[in-house]
Amino acid sequence: MRKLRVGIMGCTGLVGQQFIKMLSNHPYFEISCLTASSNSEGKKYNEVVNWMLKGEIPNIVKNLIIEKTSIETFIKNNIKIVFSALPSSVAKDIEIELRNNGLYIFSNASAHRMNEEIPIIIPEINPEHFELAEKQKNKYGGFVITNSNCTTSGFVMALKPILNLKLKSAIITTYQSISGAGRKGIPAMSIFGNVIPYIKDEEEKIERETKKILGQLVNGKIKEKEIEVIANCARVPVPFGHLECITLEFEREINESLFIKNLINFKGEPQKLRLPSAPERPIILINEKDRPQPIFDIHTEKGMAVVIGRIRRKNNKISFFLHVNNLVRGAAGTSVLNAEYALKKEIIEN
Amino acid sequence: MRKLRVGIMGCTGLVGQQFIKMLSNHPYFEISCLTASSNSEGKKYNEVVNWMLKGEIPNIVKNLIIEKTSIETFIKNNIKIVFSALPSSVAKDIEIELRNNGLYIFSNASAHRMNEEIPIIIPEINPEHFELAEKQKNKYGGFVITNSNCTTSGFVMALKPILNLKLKSAIITTYQSISGAGRKGIPAMSIFGNVIPYIKDEEEKIERETKKILGQLVNGKIKEKEIEVIANCARVPVPFGHLECITLEFEREINESLFIKNLINFKGEPQKLRLPSAPERPIILINEKDRPQPIFDIHTEKGMAVVIGRIRRKNNKISFFLHVNNLVRGAAGTSVLNAEYALKKEIIEN
Amino acid sequence: MRKLRVGIMGCTGLVGQQFIKMLSNHPYFEISCLTASSNSEGKKYNEVVNWMLKGEIPNIVKNLIIEKTSIETFIKNNIKIVFSALPSSVAKDIEIELRNNGLYIFSNASAHRMNEEIPIIIPEINPEHFELAEKQKNKYGGFVITNSNCTTSGFVMALKPILNLKLKSAIITTYQSISGAGRKGIPAMSIFGNVIPYIKDEEEKIERETKKILGQLVNGKIKEKEIEVIANCARVPVPFGHLECITLEFEREINESLFIKNLINFKGEPQKLRLPSAPERPIILINEKDRPQPIFDIHTEKGMAVVIGRIRRKNNKISFFLHVNNLVRGAAGTSVLNAEYALKKEIIEN
Amino acid sequence: MRKLRVGIMGCTGLVGQQFIKMLSNHPYFEISCLTASSNSEGKKYNEVVNWMLKGEIPNIVKNLIIEKTSIETFIKNNIKIVFSALPSSVAKDIEIELRNNGLYIFSNASAHRMNEEIPIIIPEINPEHFELAEKQKNKYGGFVITNSNCTTSGFVMALKPILNLKLKSAIITTYQSISGAGRKGIPAMSIFGNVIPYIKDEEEKIERETKKILGQLVNGKIKEKEIEVIANCARVPVPFGHLECITLEFEREINESLFIKNLINFKGEPQKLRLPSAPERPIILINEKDRPQPIFDIHTEKGMAVVIGRIRRKNNKISFFLHVNNLVRGAAGTSVLNAEYALKKEIIEN
Repeated sequence: MRKLRVGIMGCTGLVGQQFIKMLSNHPYFEISCLTASSNSEGKKYNEVVNWMLKGEIPNIVKNLIIEKTSIETFIKNNIKIVFSALPSSVAKDIEIELRNNGLYIFSNASAHRMNEEIPIIIPEINPEHFELAEKQKNKYGGFVITNSNCTTSGFVMALKPILNLKLKSAIITTYQSISGAGRKGIPAMSIFGNVIPYIKDEEEKIERETKKILGQLVNGKIKEKEIEVIANCARVPVPFGHLECITLEFEREINESLFIKNLINFKGEPQKLRLPSAPERPIILINEKDRPQPIFDIHTEKGMAVVIGRIRRKNNKISFFLHVNNLVRGAAGTSVLNAEYALKKEIIEN
Repeated sequence: MRKLRVGIMGCTGLVGQQFIKMLSNHPYFEISCLTASSNSEGKKYNEVVNWMLKGEIPNIVKNLIIEKTSIETFIKNNIKIVFSALPSSVAKDIEIELRNNGLYIFSNASAHRMNEEIPIIIPEINPEHFELAEKQKNKYGGFVITNSNCTTSGFVMALKPILNLKLKSAIITTYQSISGAGRKGIPAMSIFGNVIPYIKDEEEKIERETKKILGQLVNGKIKEKEIEVIANCARVPVPFGHLECITLEFEREINESLFIKNLINFKGEPQKLRLPSAPERPIILINEKDRPQPIFDIHTEKGMAVVIGRIRRKNNKISFFLHVNNLVRGAAGTSVLNAEYALKKEIIEN
Repeated sequence: MRKLRVGIMGCTGLVGQQFIKMLSNHPYFEISCLTASSNSEGKKYNEVVNWMLKGEIPNIVKNLIIEKTSIETFIKNNIKIVFSALPSSVAKDIEIELRNNGLYIFSNASAHRMNEEIPIIIPEINPEHFELAEKQKNKYGGFVITNSNCTTSGFVMALKPILNLKLKSAIITTYQSISGAGRKGIPAMSIFGNVIPYIKDEEEKIERETKKILGQLVNGKIKEKEIEVIANCARVPVPFGHLECITLEFEREINESLFIKNLINFKGEPQKLRLPSAPERPIILINEKDRPQPIFDIHTEKGMAVVIGRIRRKNNKISFFLHVNNLVRGAAGTSVLNAEYALKKEIIEN
Repeated sequence: MRKLRVGIMGCTGLVGQQFIKMLSNHPYFEISCLTASSNSEGKKYNEVVNWMLKGEIPNIVKNLIIEKTSIETFIKNNIKIVFSALPSSVAKDIEIELRNNGLYIFSNASAHRMNEEIPIIIPEINPEHFELAEKQKNKYGGFVITNSNCTTSGFVMALKPILNLKLKSAIITTYQSISGAGRKGIPAMSIFGNVIPYIKDEEEKIERETKKILGQLVNGKIKEKEIEVIANCARVPVPFGHLECITLEFEREINESLFIKNLINFKGEPQKLRLPSAPERPIILINEKDRPQPIFDIHTEKGMAVVIGRIRRKNNKISFFLHVNNLVRGAAGTSVLNAEYALKKEIIEN
């Protein structure tokens, strides 16, 4: 298979870096174009990036010249597939413009997640929502596919396998790392030795996105899942990895072994299709009494698996802790997996 | 009023230091005796302590010679009132022995908290449980009064004012500081840039102690409060202060203003009696959208008030964040307040 | 003595907050006017400040309305004495304008430190440089007095008492806290678990300011001290307090006891005059083998003393560690001390 | 080439883990035996280790049963080459006993570093000291070869290339990470937001080891290099990587370009022999104005290169910052490189 040329918008931020790391030696795609804000334009990638990830900057992008984020750039470069790590305010217009010019956008930006025509997809959970990609293609020539908010991606991964156990309500309380706010998002004096129990718009995003992702397609529209979701979000002084404490309430008392079995056995389309970025298992249960922990569990299955531990039942409620790599499964990784799925299923032409 | 001579057992640890700080210039009590483990015995306090609190070591204790933790020590020093910051394993025997020799013990140790004869008291919440102190006095000459686990102390303070609103279930998820594990309790490599979602026995303590504190005295025995309590405890890289995220479930949809009014207006006996260590208000509501935070709220009312913020209602559930100073309100401070109450109410003879 | 009305420019930043803390209950001065950048203008202090210091915002300033930083503001408020915590770029013009209108400026900004007419004063070290204040008054009506860079303030305090021992060269290597860069100066991702061995312009400032402060007045001009100064500056993940490792080279082998005696016995004019903010001793020697440490030594003498430990001699060199409170002795504290000195010595009219 | 069977003593600590990581897929050696303290004996490696390094525990050791640290263990396992990550107090006797039974010990322990018969070797710097290995073999059948203290390893790497420029004195001031004290060495409360300017015996080790490593063999004995070394050591809240600030004094003013050229061009025997663990260049110069930094430079050349930046000259002195990976180049990595060198040069029989 000839590799498909892809572009990355917003290539210098943390998520942009993660896109580069995952796509720099990819069996389906080759990075052919990088864009960033105007003060990086015209410069080599390794001159402007403040590389924060483990390992070196991939050689393949070191000398790539950063270009303007525009439709002309991608046309000139003969690129149809674009990954977006743009800030939401910038993504808003350009992603739509690119789509309307026939491009396929896999976006980590939140701008269009709640747009009725645009799905939020985690391919282990709701691959059937790709129907909306087809609908966009028919209407606009291209499409925008988003992945969810970083915290949501771990949360819904745990909900999906046990939804059928008559889940009534889900409470999620988070310990989110500072990388989630971007490279310069949080001043050191604010978070040092501290917890900040507030992340702008985060709780709303988790509640809404969860209902949309778990929703059903009815007559080509997503009908949101009816479920009570309560999110309480806090930032902790941890550089990478989001920990989540989740308490689920079921309609009646629940069998703990069954609950666990559902989690362990869970596999989705990416596993069946053996997509390159798919973890062998999207959910890993860990038995140690004090896990998951960000420093130990961040790289499990290259960051594509969520790690769950400390499952405890009381009456009709089950509590547990879950770890999700916020930059991989929670951002770039799911976007890449979406693109792999779209290609394999020929939603994107080879 | 002549000041009463008091002793402090376990004076070198973090809670011991907090006892010293609160008692060194106290209107009712004067520190007359300090005890610690055998390797500190016979040495001056300022030679052995690794003082971790803000401000200097009080002059009054600097040159006090540390004595052996024994009944003889207190008899010799003519002391009837003893504050205990002993490790639980050490507290177990000595606290009972002292009680049985007619001493009054105000203990932060967990050893006897679940003992039927011994109450856990937070005087804003369950001062009526001092009846058990009287019963012990009659039977043994002295008594042991405990204060609760650090996390519980904040939690029950929030529950008490709204119990009458038909509370059904309470879920608490914690962000606990490393000082809660003592001065050397957690290796830096374990917690650095990390969250540890496990604290030995903590969740069980919170669940049991909450039910006992909120329980009613029936025929001289505490009948535990029937309420579902689910605790999820985690350690975060914060030096001082415990943050708690609490979600309460009520039997039916609840009026948020009423809930808030109950919290704001809450006052207890210590406030009415104007006890020296009583905060003007035991619960402070804070309106800033990103509070409470440990670094800002740790010293509110000298660490004796819990600070609550981000109250949000969804259906019959209310979520909020609460901060408690784990060394003051969560430990030494409540013990001192218990002693003040006991003296004022003449449970201790002047 | 009637208190003199003073203003504080740049009142919301960390140094501005420290000025407020030190001046809010001062025997000579009363805070009568606060200024800040235009987006704070017209608002109450406690509505705009993000108070980062221990203790509450002083009541006296809570409801003060923040005004524009301008000559009109101070004239209208009948204020002659102004403390400046302005950013250097803003301080540049306004401080000169105020001086030329007859005001007395005590500035922590670096803008004019190397101006020939304006002295950098630490009153324990070079109070004789106040002669330049008199010269400015004669020429312009007012004056600008600066205090040194935060790191320099600790460094020169150690050099002054031993200069006469034939000091040849001084090497200073620093461990500077993040508060030195201001409240939002350093992103958490940059400093978390890291050391940054570079602080813009800092090494140059230390070298130049040291020579100026230790210089002699010759015919009304400061002749810089001839001494080799090598500064190596690094930022460490510590919130408050700068640690400095200093190695001094003397012309010949040196007597360690004499060196120590000089440090211990050192007192300056502020001590003799018993100025309100003067520490009893500006230099404290500490014998513990692992001190000074920021978390323990930050509040020594209310932050006005530098703490020195681990003095070791090898041949003609002496090495030691020194701690300086970067916001107090290293910033606002020395400025306040300068004002106290100026008033006591009638350089400012009462 | 058949792989040689090797053992690792002290396999569960941080350095032991690093040995395992480097030897688990090594072209010359295969891990055939692991030993640890008695409470790990008889258990599988992955059941007892608290793996702290990036990446998974190598499969090859996961199920290895940990054995007793004794001569019998190695004889039974037919092992002649042993890597030691033992605590110094344990290493003292067992390493000598193993040597006297004909084994070849490559030790990271400090116990025997200053023993006259035993060299400290960094093969880029003093491979000629392997002559002492031959002498030990003749006398005892086996040998002990040590690598230096972690901080020293970076320091001497910078000194070696410029020794011939008439170096007179070297001052090293350190920012050492907490992993240097082992997995449980430093309580979180002690180092959190703090700097501890004292590391037991560290300064003495740096001074002595430097002189020995740079010494010359004269009649089969090491004559220590005469050079003034002043070390000032401090611990900072950084998990991995030691930063060092080094100021060198030369006999006369020095040519900065020549100095830099010497550093850049430096290569040693490991580079010429293309040993498997040898970095392409042992010293990397970095031009960014704010580097080296632990979080960015820790993995350079897999942790085997030291990274130098911010070179500045003043008169006859040159200052710069240097980063060394304390667990790789500063510990296990140099030991492995020593073994590779010994094998290649047939000091160990194939």
